[in-house]
Amino acid sequence: MGKQPKHAISPTRSEDYPEWYQQVIKASDMAERSPVRGCMVIKPWGYALWENIMQAMDAMFKETGVKNAYFPLFIPLSFMQKEAEHVEGFAKECAVVTHHRLEKNSQGELVPAGRLTEPLVVRPTSETIIADAFAKWIGSYRDLPIVLNQWGNVVRWEMRTRIFLRTSEFLWQEGHTAHANREEAWERTLLMLDIYARLAEEYLAMPVIKGHKTAAERFPGAVDTICIEAMMQDRKALQAGTSHFLGQNFARASQIKFQSAEEKEEYVWTTSWGASTRLIGGVIMTHGDDDGIIMPPRAASAHVVLLPIFKKEDERQAVMAYTESLARELKARTYHGRAVTVEVDPRDIGGARGWEWIKKGIPLRAEIGSREIKENTVFLGRRDTPHQQRVSLKREAFVAEIPGILDEIQNNLFARALAFRTENTVTIDDRGEFYDYFTPRNLEKPEIHGGFALSGWCGDPACEAKIKEDLTVTIRCVPFEPLGGAGRCIRCGKPGQHRVVFAKAY
Amino acid sequence: MGKQPKHAISPTRSEDYPEWYQQVIKASDMAERSPVRGCMVIKPWGYALWENIMQAMDAMFKETGVKNAYFPLFIPLSFMQKEAEHVEGFAKECAVVTHHRLEKNSQGELVPAGRLTEPLVVRPTSETIIADAFAKWIGSYRDLPIVLNQWGNVVRWEMRTRIFLRTSEFLWQEGHTAHANREEAWERTLLMLDIYARLAEEYLAMPVIKGHKTAAERFPGAVDTICIEAMMQDRKALQAGTSHFLGQNFARASQIKFQSAEEKEEYVWTTSWGASTRLIGGVIMTHGDDDGIIMPPRAASAHVVLLPIFKKEDERQAVMAYTESLARELKARTYHGRAVTVEVDPRDIGGARGWEWIKKGIPLRAEIGSREIKENTVFLGRRDTPHQQRVSLKREAFVAEIPGILDEIQNNLFARALAFRTENTVTIDDRGEFYDYFTPRNLEKPEIHGGFALSGWCGDPACEAKIKEDLTVTIRCVPFEPLGGAGRCIRCGKPGQHRVVFAKAY
Repeated sequence: MGKQPKHAISPTRSEDYPEWYQQVIKASDMAERSPVRGCMVIKPWGYALWENIMQAMDAMFKETGVKNAYFPLFIPLSFMQKEAEHVEGFAKECAVVTHHRLEKNSQGELVPAGRLTEPLVVRPTSETIIADAFAKWIGSYRDLPIVLNQWGNVVRWEMRTRIFLRTSEFLWQEGHTAHANREEAWERTLLMLDIYARLAEEYLAMPVIKGHKTAAERFPGAVDTICIEAMMQDRKALQAGTSHFLGQNFARASQIKFQSAEEKEEYVWTTSWGASTRLIGGVIMTHGDDDGIIMPPRAASAHVVLLPIFKKEDERQAVMAYTESLARELKARTYHGRAVTVEVDPRDIGGARGWEWIKKGIPLRAEIGSREIKENTVFLGRRDTPHQQRVSLKREAFVAEIPGILDEIQNNLFARALAFRTENTVTIDDRGEFYDYFTPRNLEKPEIHGGFALSGWCGDPACEAKIKEDLTVTIRCVPFEPLGGAGRCIRCGKPGQHRVVFAKAY
Repeated sequence: MGKQPKHAISPTRSEDYPEWYQQVIKASDMAERSPVRGCMVIKPWGYALWENIMQAMDAMFKETGVKNAYFPLFIPLSFMQKEAEHVEGFAKECAVVTHHRLEKNSQGELVPAGRLTEPLVVRPTSETIIADAFAKWIGSYRDLPIVLNQWGNVVRWEMRTRIFLRTSEFLWQEGHTAHANREEAWERTLLMLDIYARLAEEYLAMPVIKGHKTAAERFPGAVDTICIEAMMQDRKALQAGTSHFLGQNFARASQIKFQSAEEKEEYVWTTSWGASTRLIGGVIMTHGDDDGIIMPPRAASAHVVLLPIFKKEDERQAVMAYTESLARELKARTYHGRAVTVEVDPRDIGGARGWEWIKKGIPLRAEIGSREIKENTVFLGRRDTPHQQRVSLKREAFVAEIPGILDEIQNNLFARALAFRTENTVTIDDRGEFYDYFTPRNLEKPEIHGGFALSGWCGDPACEAKIKEDLTVTIRCVPFEPLGGAGRCIRCGKPGQHRVVFAKAY
């Protein structure tokens, strides 16, 4: 692919991680900032990844009896107020519709007109409007459970935005369920977190830790929020999916009652659970390297790009014919339940072409020139190995083995990410060591700091708050799987209630 | 299914068509009005139909090289103003965001706060924001064509709403393309209308007429709008999809320029095209009868419901085992490219159960009791034949033939709809007759009136406007396929420019 810079992305991850993140997205052509404050444009290469994520999640949801539905974009202000903690949690970031038309003022300027009697909030999440529907739909235990999901957009006004990670509008799914008893609601809360964990680990090759949020990090209005937490390559944590056990809070706020089998009137138990386009940010930061994005094959926007090379114009026809017939053969193969997706890029732009696809993170690049035709081969580069390291493969072998090669890449990415997390997870029982671990050593690179610290916590929100204040480190979760003895609280030294995961976070 | 009313839906179509429409939706449990003015809640049975429609369209789009992307929900006010006709067309129905948080006022009431410096319009359509992106992305003819589609929600504030047909928020897809020349843009405009026509006819069993809109009915900012028009059972027209040739209007408004192969700077040519959840309203009004919805099998939310019947409790186990093994066999079959979808409804609620599924419009209902087990049969009812008319079918034959049976229903529905349209389409060349045709004969049923009139039009917007004023009848389209000689203008008597389709419309 000709002479190239040592790395395709500048700055590199170690030079400036946040800026690397912006540059790697730009280089991949996945998304960009929009002229609308805090909103993003998701371009085809990024949206295709999201489509694959949606498809995988949707299939897993439906296997557990989830049905899709759609509720309004707008929520009346009065609905938002029904659950006190909920409105408190979202009030600072609500886009509010106050008018329903535009008209010209006396200066000929277009201005909002037709003031609404009740302002409408653009949904930041839909618990309140769905609770209102549940209250209407549910009369008896026979109407339960209700297990719904909605694919859509939500708006949470953000002052400091980062593409995919924190934007004013994002795409997501939000599930909402109602049950006759606590046990069933809790089981559903757990089941959906399991699906998120499977999605992250099996599709996105992103190892995650499952656990409970502390009260301070809980969803506004929830009794318990459980989550999956992943480690990015700057060793910060990313919350990649949350499932909320809402108890009877929203049921009481919206009077969702039912007649039980014993003919008693009771409040239902509800849950909600969501995962968003933020997952794409997680994929980028888990796998990307200094040459660009690396897409895990099971979710990748495409699996392989064919790069025909014609040194002379009279080779074009033969090379294109070989390329196109190979593309057809590959498309007839299946990898992990979906047809192998093939891009063909015949542009004659020299080495820049190969680099474009490296930066886009496509798992496989196959070059095809007159030598490959003569030898009936492809010259194959994998995105999980150095770009120089390409191998000649017999065409038949390539077509036959492509699912296996993709799976090797998938597994390799997961193993790498898991090894990275393991390397950067430490058990700390000493307060000084803990503070030292999370204090940047090099003030010119403030993003380089500790990873996950497994330390004791007494359960007091004050200790949690003090650590956050001192270090901007939070408790990411109280893991389901105990991490060994709880020891003593890393802040106050009193007996620990749990050993928890501390980290800086997105 | 026991004693039943003569018709499951009251009023019937002929008694009160608009009220029948509301009642049939309610009875099917597809959707309902939401507490948010003009917005709807799409319930699982309605959303599943929309998912099938999306899937069919998305696959057809992608076959022609369309890529999906996502643009912001909000459009800055200044963007809306760039194309004069465009803003004029949408100003009266824009939801406007003016604040970005909520806070308590001195009375403790929650009120909008944080006024935005520039108000944001919730997208009624995305031409202006996408044009802005195109202007950034396009530099040379090598960047063209761009062929994108977006699945999402839009808001057009409506004062008089009807579920699926006219709601303030609706779901749709909007395609947006940019091309180097007029011919290619026009071909794309036509190609996408062909896809809408195929969707309507081949999936929704809804015959359509393709044609051009007149200037009065054109999309605001378009050079030409082409459309598909269907006839509902009240003989009104429904515009079921539109494709817009935008010429260079939006390119000029947003300065979308490119360097041509001849190194000249030129404006691109753009198109846009959309179809929405309104199609569901079209399905309901094309096929529904006085017993409820009838879903065309290729798009149906589910294909068949199995209704186990246990007269005695000791039959339950055997009947359920038979039912569940039959469900598995059916699900392993494929109909028109997707797995046969099976509902099992074991509720012991008597005849109401069968009627529920009739009202939901599921194509097939299979009853299974001890007699069926003994004879190894199912007792099958089809939604396109009278509900009493059920037949006993050997289980093996049913499993083997289900795709054929579904296709029979599909074809039957299309043929019925086409026959209805033919019956209610007349060629009229006399003005008196035309006025008479569209004047309600029975003033107690104002919705019962003429169907499609094929009549001459001189091309003068004044004649079109007068007819609209007099009769609320509009020119639905100037059909691609000529309807015979243009004759004379049905209003002014001057020589006709075209013979066009006149009708009342949704």
